[in-house]
Amino acid sequence: MNEKTFPYKSLHNFALAVFKKIGCQGEEALLAANVLLSADLRGIDSHGLARLSGYIRLWEANRINAKPNIKIIHESPSTAVVDGDGGLGLVVAPKAMEIAIAKAKQCGTGWVSVQHSNHFGIAGYHAMMALEHDMIGIAMTNASPLVAPTYSIERLLGTNPIAVAIPADKQPPFVADMATTTAANGKLEILQRKNKEAPAGWIQDKDGKSSTNPHELKNGGALVPLGSDFEHGSHKGYGLGSIVDIFSAVLSGANYGPWVPPFVSFLAPPTDPVGKGIGHFFGAMRVDAFRPAAEFKSHMDNWISRFRSAKTIEGQPRVLIPGDPEREMHEIRIKEGIPLNPKVVDDLRELAEKFELNF
Amino acid sequence: MNEKTFPYKSLHNFALAVFKKIGCQGEEALLAANVLLSADLRGIDSHGLARLSGYIRLWEANRINAKPNIKIIHESPSTAVVDGDGGLGLVVAPKAMEIAIAKAKQCGTGWVSVQHSNHFGIAGYHAMMALEHDMIGIAMTNASPLVAPTYSIERLLGTNPIAVAIPADKQPPFVADMATTTAANGKLEILQRKNKEAPAGWIQDKDGKSSTNPHELKNGGALVPLGSDFEHGSHKGYGLGSIVDIFSAVLSGANYGPWVPPFVSFLAPPTDPVGKGIGHFFGAMRVDAFRPAAEFKSHMDNWISRFRSAKTIEGQPRVLIPGDPEREMHEIRIKEGIPLNPKVVDDLRELAEKFELNF
Repeated sequence: MNEKTFPYKSLHNFALAVFKKIGCQGEEALLAANVLLSADLRGIDSHGLARLSGYIRLWEANRINAKPNIKIIHESPSTAVVDGDGGLGLVVAPKAMEIAIAKAKQCGTGWVSVQHSNHFGIAGYHAMMALEHDMIGIAMTNASPLVAPTYSIERLLGTNPIAVAIPADKQPPFVADMATTTAANGKLEILQRKNKEAPAGWIQDKDGKSSTNPHELKNGGALVPLGSDFEHGSHKGYGLGSIVDIFSAVLSGANYGPWVPPFVSFLAPPTDPVGKGIGHFFGAMRVDAFRPAAEFKSHMDNWISRFRSAKTIEGQPRVLIPGDPEREMHEIRIKEGIPLNPKVVDDLRELAEKFELNF
Repeated sequence: MNEKTFPYKSLHNFALAVFKKIGCQGEEALLAANVLLSADLRGIDSHGLARLSGYIRLWEANRINAKPNIKIIHESPSTAVVDGDGGLGLVVAPKAMEIAIAKAKQCGTGWVSVQHSNHFGIAGYHAMMALEHDMIGIAMTNASPLVAPTYSIERLLGTNPIAVAIPADKQPPFVADMATTTAANGKLEILQRKNKEAPAGWIQDKDGKSSTNPHELKNGGALVPLGSDFEHGSHKGYGLGSIVDIFSAVLSGANYGPWVPPFVSFLAPPTDPVGKGIGHFFGAMRVDAFRPAAEFKSHMDNWISRFRSAKTIEGQPRVLIPGDPEREMHEIRIKEGIPLNPKVVDDLRELAEKFELNF
């Protein structure tokens, strides 16, 4: 089946209309559509419109609150804990990041841990909110358990991504946005759809043996932490995923580890929760709380130019700066449209029917 | 050649005496000895007494200042930039971490970027300073370029470690301390000494091809970022190493990327520096700036117990919590002594002779 391409604007309008239909207030519906579509624009297709029907199913199961009362429940001059009140992560996350930015304006940096939230789209969106303020932005989230720590056959961590966005001057910003696993779950889903083998080192089977079968997760297998195995540093990926889990959930009072509720509506949340919803963690650091912003940004230009011009391995055209592929994809898709998998198109048509919308 | 074991106290006294001989003030000499020996105690032999003669050679080459004027050159309520004045990283780093802790007491979190420093020992020591204050501690540093970014044949990054220490209640703390490469340089040095092959995925040769020859770095080869190759996520390890470089050096005004001066005295620093010395970055977050400390620490106990009791892959006795192996090594070595490689013993005897000390 071939992918069909749709203009950004019409897809954005559709997502906006769907979020309004479930009862999101105007500004929040717009925010949710912006965050969701930013994934499609940046080429992270697993986190964009492909997930819209998933959010709606969670709302139908009363596991997402379309009219949340998002509020600070604990704070210090440079920190806050935000209660997302079960709202869409797509709305809770940018609002929490705004609080981190406001704190940074006041005292140099701002750090916000969030409880009672849901899937927040791509981490990179939230981190990048800091850029226009000449701040470094940081965003992370925990997620439902798909990942086995080194030596474990139990899935205790999510793919727990970390995003860091750093402003430059004439160069585009540095934007790293990475799962703390060898491969993101979205990459595995693509192989599952195509029924293709996964590279060795991405997954393990239910006994903890390395496997190339992309369907292994349905049989009790697991994704493995960045590093793949102990000899190649998987204990470091496990450590990073754990740090994300603890900053996002143990600091905020959300669920952590194996208690994180699943994103899919057909799996029930654990009956013995240790907190509320899933957790996120955001940071904003004002560059000029360290050195004059112009000075910093000019050195970032120099950093980026030097790395971009590195001599490459034969056959490789260039050394990439984190964020390059996603920015280039954005530039193409905002002009030429967003290609959607036929399964996603079917999903969106069903949503259109359900909510009496055009698609 | 067999390793000989020495009591902690006598090795500590020796290091202290050496630091005093080069002119370190009493309190600073003690700090340097504490930080240096903490590596030997925790089993990170590459970063302890094995490096003492290296520090002394740098001091002899006028590249370490034994009487630094360590000072804050820029600050905001939650941030500071510290000028290490060319002092021993072993002294500059804990003093900068103290500033981060003091800032956190005032406004919830403290973040300190450091310029004009040197090798700071193990990152874990500095991060762990936060624990007794019921704070989360973070420490990172850049280092001389040994690592090639994904697709590059040039060495542009150091092994750039990240350490994060998180307090618990009855459980020992969570302490992750990791190079952002697949293998730390110390592990490669062991293979070089034994003339043993390295596992595939640790290093590349001068053309960027994967190699198992541990001596490849002398021939223009490089260590590779955590993930080993693009298919296994080396762009993520490259991203992490870059973030450490930027937080440590572009924020502070230290040298970054390929401009970071080498630790070894026989290699001259670049003649076109982009900053001063090497850079570090420290963070301290007061737990009770997010939620009551007792509540947080009790959930950390639960987190740690759950992960520690995970079902293991057959043949693996247990799932480790970051920091377990180092803490257990500390418990053994503080009682039974520290085994030293004969080459290190020779080095220390030479130092003893040079400074008219007993060893």
